[in-house]
Amino acid sequence: MLRLATLAVTGALVFITTGILSGGEIFPDSDDSIAAMYRADADKLIDAALADSSTYDRLAYLGDTFGARFSGSQNLEDAIDWILDEMRKDGLENVRGEEVMVPHWVRGEESLSLVSPRGGKMAILGLGGSIGTEPEGITAEVLVVSSFDDLADRGSEAEGKIVLFNVPFTTYGRTVQYRVTGANRASEAGAVASLVRSVGPASMYTPHTGVMRYEEGVRQIPHAAVTLEDAMMMQRMQDRGQKIVVTLKMGAETFPDVVSRNVVAEIVGSEFPEEVVVFGGHIDSWDVGQGVMDDAGGCVAAWQALVLMKRLGLRPKRTIRVVMWTNEENGLRGGTGYAERHADQVANHVLAMESDAGVFKPQGFGFTGSDSAFEIVTEIGTLLDRIESGTITRGDGGADIGPLMQQGVPGMGLRVDGTEYFWYHHTEADTMDKLDPHEINLCVATMAVMAYVAADLDERIPR
Amino acid sequence: MLRLATLAVTGALVFITTGILSGGEIFPDSDDSIAAMYRADADKLIDAALADSSTYDRLAYLGDTFGARFSGSQNLEDAIDWILDEMRKDGLENVRGEEVMVPHWVRGEESLSLVSPRGGKMAILGLGGSIGTEPEGITAEVLVVSSFDDLADRGSEAEGKIVLFNVPFTTYGRTVQYRVTGANRASEAGAVASLVRSVGPASMYTPHTGVMRYEEGVRQIPHAAVTLEDAMMMQRMQDRGQKIVVTLKMGAETFPDVVSRNVVAEIVGSEFPEEVVVFGGHIDSWDVGQGVMDDAGGCVAAWQALVLMKRLGLRPKRTIRVVMWTNEENGLRGGTGYAERHADQVANHVLAMESDAGVFKPQGFGFTGSDSAFEIVTEIGTLLDRIESGTITRGDGGADIGPLMQQGVPGMGLRVDGTEYFWYHHTEADTMDKLDPHEINLCVATMAVMAYVAADLDERIPR
Repeated sequence: MLRLATLAVTGALVFITTGILSGGEIFPDSDDSIAAMYRADADKLIDAALADSSTYDRLAYLGDTFGARFSGSQNLEDAIDWILDEMRKDGLENVRGEEVMVPHWVRGEESLSLVSPRGGKMAILGLGGSIGTEPEGITAEVLVVSSFDDLADRGSEAEGKIVLFNVPFTTYGRTVQYRVTGANRASEAGAVASLVRSVGPASMYTPHTGVMRYEEGVRQIPHAAVTLEDAMMMQRMQDRGQKIVVTLKMGAETFPDVVSRNVVAEIVGSEFPEEVVVFGGHIDSWDVGQGVMDDAGGCVAAWQALVLMKRLGLRPKRTIRVVMWTNEENGLRGGTGYAERHADQVANHVLAMESDAGVFKPQGFGFTGSDSAFEIVTEIGTLLDRIESGTITRGDGGADIGPLMQQGVPGMGLRVDGTEYFWYHHTEADTMDKLDPHEINLCVATMAVMAYVAADLDERIPR
Repeated sequence: MLRLATLAVTGALVFITTGILSGGEIFPDSDDSIAAMYRADADKLIDAALADSSTYDRLAYLGDTFGARFSGSQNLEDAIDWILDEMRKDGLENVRGEEVMVPHWVRGEESLSLVSPRGGKMAILGLGGSIGTEPEGITAEVLVVSSFDDLADRGSEAEGKIVLFNVPFTTYGRTVQYRVTGANRASEAGAVASLVRSVGPASMYTPHTGVMRYEEGVRQIPHAAVTLEDAMMMQRMQDRGQKIVVTLKMGAETFPDVVSRNVVAEIVGSEFPEEVVVFGGHIDSWDVGQGVMDDAGGCVAAWQALVLMKRLGLRPKRTIRVVMWTNEENGLRGGTGYAERHADQVANHVLAMESDAGVFKPQGFGFTGSDSAFEIVTEIGTLLDRIESGTITRGDGGADIGPLMQQGVPGMGLRVDGTEYFWYHHTEADTMDKLDPHEINLCVATMAVMAYVAADLDERIPR
């Protein structure tokens, strides 16, 4: 409805006054479209975001000073303490850490040594949740397979061996299953450990970690990722008939759950304070790199979007709440804990929005919700046309907002240029230098405009 | 002269019969240009090279089975033994290892830990020739500098600190000086150790090693390379006033020289066997990765070029000698030893050719020699037009053939698409997957045609 009205009005005006309307100077009262009503505020937010270096600086400070922020680590809690302090200094409202219990897996020392056809060390990253080995490690022959089907076809060949899933990256969804569930299939085939080719499309001898899961009733075996280089090398060795023997040592251990916190800050709504637009990212990372692409960038972009509203005096009708969820990577306890703690508020969550694909050049949002809601956010998206980041597509959301979306809250995920995301994802190379200050600012602007307008509309976004 | 004659003849013919001459079908006796005389042999070599998978397979076998081949390592000598065996099986002539003494530096265990502003581990690679530290390491504050001038400007600030040269990659020549000589400048400024930003344009948290040298009379301090990521991080920390403290541990040690070998194989010339065209690469590598880009690829390409001639029954008038020089990386003992051992033969070295820039898509050769020699090799280059790899430019040669070139031997270096070379150079990521079988075959074809024709000309290439 809104969108159709806009098109009609705009269509007529464009014919006569193209280029003038966009300045908002004529007929300001004759156009009650979202685009017309919020153009000035949106432009203020965009201009302020693009003029600012504090987002990059804050993100760099966070990444450099606290490093990786893995669930259960002191670094994560130190980073959260610093953020809470800064948010209070920013004058944000209801700043708080909301406690949740999170898993506490520790990688320990780990190594993979080639024993045959020659000696050598290979880089690995144990996969989150894996058991460790005895201190002397596991020495066994390697069987390289190309898929679960290939493993099944090889019958008893895997017995007593270490299975390597050498599956080239296609999409994350298709490839990651070998990391998540590979140990179970290898174990069922009789393997004593399993390895997976790192889930990524390119490598400079860079292993990728990530979560794995043991299935009920399946014998647990250690599971680790090798580099693309070594996966391909072992494939070649096997193809030419060379016997491959390796020694895998992993000091991985799972300790009792510990306390972490979701970081929360708000601007309380002026008319409907009980209604909430929630947006953010996840503050935890893997235990490698700086976790700034995944996902401190999303957290800081949302935070700074709220700071911009505060600075510009833009208080929307509904409450805007930034949440930096904890433990997305290996438990999702932040996302589930938030939905549980705020269970009686979920019905009043108007929109949930997440940035967890890296703060690269933003393109728009993926949206999950009703057709009428889609129309409205699409209309809001036109306010982002000048920075080319307002295209709304169907589907998508975010892991942390998943528990809210399952209860019917409309959800959206920031879409960005994903060219490089999986190069650095879950590696030591997820570091500040991979991010561009201007692109980060574009993400801030995009999230600020979407969140602010969604929270300020006269009518709440329908389910 | 030859070239001018060709141009005259070709110019006339092209006018009438473009496209027919290239088949070599008409006027075969009327054209005594190199291009006309060697077209058929060149095409045979190119066709055979491009139809062959054995070059890639041999290179992969070598890289996978023996791994890095560092001077002083058993891997290097094992690889040499295998190559000599294979060359004999190939039916190459005068196959032999020519002994030279090489340095024996061993990296040992090494680590760099961040102590302040937080804890953490940083990837390093000690630089070849560096001294080690005491077992407890060196714990000191870091001073980041952007150049030698910047270090000089900072006066006494470096005293007692670890100096980090954070110099972004521009060209290898301009940037590598900080790796080679940085320890001396840092030491003179009072530093207790020095670090250098890895010499490369891109990184996925990938440190680069390489050679360093201590100057006479300068106090020796340990010297290691950090990743681009950590160099930039420490720069940001310093810029925002954070005190950086690290602990550097290096187990590096230099042992007495050991025996290695230059690998030599020939096709003896039919008319002037005492005259030699020598070509090859260096068989040693750094102690990381597989050293297939740098420089097993160059070695195997030359070897396979000789195998192709043998297989096609192409025995040139002069001797063609493949040499895989040892110890290019940290001593150049193979190159200097070859020139010394063959001192009485240097005058009869007609041409020396090296491939040491990676076996990527070949473009031609850089040439150092007289104008008349340049004309001839340029003419030979036209035989490579069909694979776009025959453009001869002025300057260049190769490190291993340097001692020959210094004595007046015309020298040339294979030029290739260098886009990716310094991404992987001296890193764990110098592995087979970075190379393309077709591009390697193009290198074989290019080297084979140039070496064969240069060795078979009626007149030897002039000095």
